[in-house]
Amino acid sequence: MADPWQECMDYAVALARKAGEIIRGALKEEISVMTKSSPVDLVTETDQKVENFIISLIKEKYPSHSFIGEESVAAGVGSILTDNPTWIIDPIDGTTNFVHRFPFVAVSIGFVVNKKVEFGIVYSCIEDKMYTARRGKGAFCNGQKLQVSGQEDITKSLLVTELGSNRDPETIKIILSNMERLLSIPIHGIRAVGTAAVNMCLVATGGADAYYEMGIHCWDMAGAGIIITEAGGVLLDVSGGPFDLMSRRIIAASSRAIGERIAKALQIIPLKRDDATN
Amino acid sequence: MADPWQECMDYAVALARKAGEIIRGALKEEISVMTKSSPVDLVTETDQKVENFIISLIKEKYPSHSFIGEESVAAGVGSILTDNPTWIIDPIDGTTNFVHRFPFVAVSIGFVVNKKVEFGIVYSCIEDKMYTARRGKGAFCNGQKLQVSGQEDITKSLLVTELGSNRDPETIKIILSNMERLLSIPIHGIRAVGTAAVNMCLVATGGADAYYEMGIHCWDMAGAGIIITEAGGVLLDVSGGPFDLMSRRIIAASSRAIGERIAKALQIIPLKRDDATN
Repeated sequence: MADPWQECMDYAVALARKAGEIIRGALKEEISVMTKSSPVDLVTETDQKVENFIISLIKEKYPSHSFIGEESVAAGVGSILTDNPTWIIDPIDGTTNFVHRFPFVAVSIGFVVNKKVEFGIVYSCIEDKMYTARRGKGAFCNGQKLQVSGQEDITKSLLVTELGSNRDPETIKIILSNMERLLSIPIHGIRAVGTAAVNMCLVATGGADAYYEMGIHCWDMAGAGIIITEAGGVLLDVSGGPFDLMSRRIIAASSRAIGERIAKALQIIPLKRDDATN
Repeated sequence: MADPWQECMDYAVALARKAGEIIRGALKEEISVMTKSSPVDLVTETDQKVENFIISLIKEKYPSHSFIGEESVAAGVGSILTDNPTWIIDPIDGTTNFVHRFPFVAVSIGFVVNKKVEFGIVYSCIEDKMYTARRGKGAFCNGQKLQVSGQEDITKSLLVTELGSNRDPETIKIILSNMERLLSIPIHGIRAVGTAAVNMCLVATGGADAYYEMGIHCWDMAGAGIIITEAGGVLLDVSGGPFDLMSRRIIAASSRAIGERIAKALQIIPLKRDDATN
């Protein structure tokens, strides 16, 4: 039987590449910056333009499909995941990087059917790295097959995470004390390139051994999550339990052992789910 | 009058490029890891091999010159900076990244005469980005002129720093509380790619607004420092006073205003200088 979603995936790769071209073009112009939930939660006209570009072209081809897009949600559209084929889109993952021209900015597209991710695309457009994964068929970067490190020893691990855009003093304290507990195990180090999607893809390449974060959204994880699992990695909740795409929290690890050890070290930040109705 | 050090600089660029080739080659082989000052202060045979390669070829051409190299110092050679023309070399800046194949690894060469840096080279060899600066003649990446952002408003700034390889609990606490104070100003964010030299070059490109760190060494800063100043940035001590190459501490900023604001936020970590004689 033919793969029913392969055509959607091929279309998504082409769209992500075109979206990346728009972003690279915008980097050459003046960038005007607005804020969302806090003075450091940034958004630009390019975020909105790229999201509209992607969604309108998918709608044209697949009018019955559903969408959850970062900027549509910011504009008041709901983000309830149903069983309908659903495109989960972050037009610019790493908007702060984009604003500063810090060279990691990604277009992220995840495609979910019956609440299961069927494929994921992360296009790190300044580096021109196209990460893709189709469920059951492996993960790739620019056509090259990806494999996580498989590292199981936390004391030999390199982690990626972010300090986030929440400036609530209590949240900052938890984020930093989580780093303190991990560093003290000890681990080799922590890196942060400023986009959840690229951080996760770096785990998929084997360049880092795990990524964890709380406070991100389904559009930050939907594309890259399957790239990790298809590269041989595991997704866990920060509690160590099963990963939940709408929970705003994730551990993406090269092995279950490392993921569970990180979960043990983390203090949990209370968060409103992406699909909360109030 | 001809530039007396231009020939040295051209030679250094060629050597850095060849060293980068050796490093890229080594990334395809098994990497065997040893430790230095702590279980997370890593070194490999490639660090030593690349440093020997660079120093032996410079010695052949400039037998009267002096050297300060990370691995030579680790092996017991002194690191006193005299007025003699001195090559300050980090064969692999980002050894932990190298070990993990996290894609930021740099060859760093600074050339100092009468204690003044005459030129600096940072070759980020996985990205194939050759950063160079000759005193008074500007900074470049792959031939393209670099310019810092010029940002003066700390609340609109993106910073780069590192968590470092010191696992002493008190040091970790100061590093994290410095981040806490900066995040609370607030700032846009903090990034960490795992090499001082590349972090500093990202400031030179305008991609980040400042870099600060305590605990690094002269070989981490000698090459990249002049790339920052030639791109229009400033170097300060973490106290806000004048920068001192042998002090193991730095603020490299796109403007004096940002640099001084960071200095105000930082609690200082006590450190033994690179040129301490005991």
